[in-house]
Amino acid sequence: MSHETLSLAEAHRLVRTALIASRTRPENADCVARALVSAEASGQPGHGLSRVPGYAAQSASGKVDGAAVPTLQEVTPSLVRIDAAHGFAYPAIEKALEVLPAMASRQGIAMAAVARSHHFGQGGAHCEALADKGYVALVFGNAPKSIAPWGGKEPLFGTNPIAFAAPVPGKPSLVIDLAVSRVAKGKIMAAEKTGSPIPEGWALDKDGNPTTDATAAMAGTMLPIGEAKGAALAMMIEVLSAALVGASLAFEASSLFSGEGKPPNLGQVILAIDPRLSSGGAYAERIATLMAAVEGADGARVPGSRRIEMRAKAEADGLSIPSAILREIRAL
Amino acid sequence: MSHETLSLAEAHRLVRTALIASRTRPENADCVARALVSAEASGQPGHGLSRVPGYAAQSASGKVDGAAVPTLQEVTPSLVRIDAAHGFAYPAIEKALEVLPAMASRQGIAMAAVARSHHFGQGGAHCEALADKGYVALVFGNAPKSIAPWGGKEPLFGTNPIAFAAPVPGKPSLVIDLAVSRVAKGKIMAAEKTGSPIPEGWALDKDGNPTTDATAAMAGTMLPIGEAKGAALAMMIEVLSAALVGASLAFEASSLFSGEGKPPNLGQVILAIDPRLSSGGAYAERIATLMAAVEGADGARVPGSRRIEMRAKAEADGLSIPSAILREIRAL
Repeated sequence: MSHETLSLAEAHRLVRTALIASRTRPENADCVARALVSAEASGQPGHGLSRVPGYAAQSASGKVDGAAVPTLQEVTPSLVRIDAAHGFAYPAIEKALEVLPAMASRQGIAMAAVARSHHFGQGGAHCEALADKGYVALVFGNAPKSIAPWGGKEPLFGTNPIAFAAPVPGKPSLVIDLAVSRVAKGKIMAAEKTGSPIPEGWALDKDGNPTTDATAAMAGTMLPIGEAKGAALAMMIEVLSAALVGASLAFEASSLFSGEGKPPNLGQVILAIDPRLSSGGAYAERIATLMAAVEGADGARVPGSRRIEMRAKAEADGLSIPSAILREIRAL
Repeated sequence: MSHETLSLAEAHRLVRTALIASRTRPENADCVARALVSAEASGQPGHGLSRVPGYAAQSASGKVDGAAVPTLQEVTPSLVRIDAAHGFAYPAIEKALEVLPAMASRQGIAMAAVARSHHFGQGGAHCEALADKGYVALVFGNAPKSIAPWGGKEPLFGTNPIAFAAPVPGKPSLVIDLAVSRVAKGKIMAAEKTGSPIPEGWALDKDGNPTTDATAAMAGTMLPIGEAKGAALAMMIEVLSAALVGASLAFEASSLFSGEGKPPNLGQVILAIDPRLSSGGAYAERIATLMAAVEGADGARVPGSRRIEMRAKAEADGLSIPSAILREIRAL
């Protein structure tokens, strides 16, 4: 597969231009471009430039309202509801990230419930933005159906990530970001495109049998981590991100890739906690002790630490993007 | 293994008496007995009467202060800190469960940070108490070390459960409660006692190699669900339950079984969210739709639903407890 190298600024301009050409207003296009380029630079291409053709198709068809302006409702001093208005998720999440720090400092804990939303990309990045300001953060969001309740054959839950970040005084924030599926769905989609088999243990076919056929896997269900435990976590995240905000459940949500259908109407919940208040001042020493122990453990590695090297490399050397993706984006 | 059947009231009296004989004040003994008998009745014997000898030894030696009275500090209208004062966890958690509903109704979200605490037992039960009152709840707590950071050989994290519950109007609450280890540590301890081998995939020995020897497993580490993902979740829960409240990290905490050593000083965090406020009134319909889909899925089962049948059976037929455990308790 041939690749092309782009600087971060070039990648940003390219994404921005493609989205504006697809009826996204410039401010939103900028915000979306920042998120996708940052994901690409952090080593998460599944939430990076590969998303542009799908995003553009949805904006062009009106399935995503590229002109949407998210609105914020202050429900209590600790709770805001944000209406993404069937636009992209990132402008709504950016709005949440603007107000949560002051709320958490005042209240100890604060929550933003984002409704009528869309693909929220790299959940860890949203948490990291809060952690870099001194807050412990959690983000829960749902995604279209691909995991079955344990024992079932039909998908009902999304691969539903848990994203978390915590400030570490004097060091990069700790970021943990994982889908409850054993592998990212993008890996199965990529195998289907190239006609390659997938390893056993990734997915089941529509009859609930293990499969190594990517097309059969796409028609079936993705296996969760920890068997029944991961399926239960996926259901928990449906409650936290959809029921709790009044959004679509995974099995009601439309595709995040095609321009057809009604808006996916996904939900996200963002929590920010001021660790100084909750710990009575003990947090800084406690997190430093934990990080030192993990950093000092022979053979181990701090979760999420690879992103820092990847970003430094992207800053220095630019992004290496498959030419096929760039061709699709440029055609827009 | 021979068993004996006790009514719930008999089991409560037995636990209460054993704890009082071990220097726990009657009010605390009652509270602990309620938690242990409820866990036993819910099909969680690892958090049930099997804990009494260890609890009693810790109360008798003063490692747990059986006379402790937990105190509560209102940090903000959304945040309380509770000092369990090196007593049992249950009285401190009971205090949190008393104040969180009113706080969550007013603020939308509320949090209790419990420090200088101990084994918190069945996390799902604490969440369920909040869900039964109409709140979505999360509980995070740490436990003494048994899981290594991924790639490492030395345990640094506890098996650290995630517990969650959500109200379901007109039906029992949804309860999800899982440790991030593949199996409960109690299963390995039980195999060690009887000299039985354990299945491969449960644990690694102290050199990081797979083992089926229970003694080698106890000296090594327990395997997390989802490999690196479960280890990352265990670390996340260390931050949420220990760093965030200023408690001991798993690798600093003393045993929850023996009477020797200093207090374990574990931490717990309890979150309560009012789903009516966060969803703008949409929650009841959303959770009903999700539950109906899972209940209607062929071959699937709602997570945590077994507890309801188990409790009904325990109410009707009493608890079946291994005679060896009852002998130990009665000897106190």
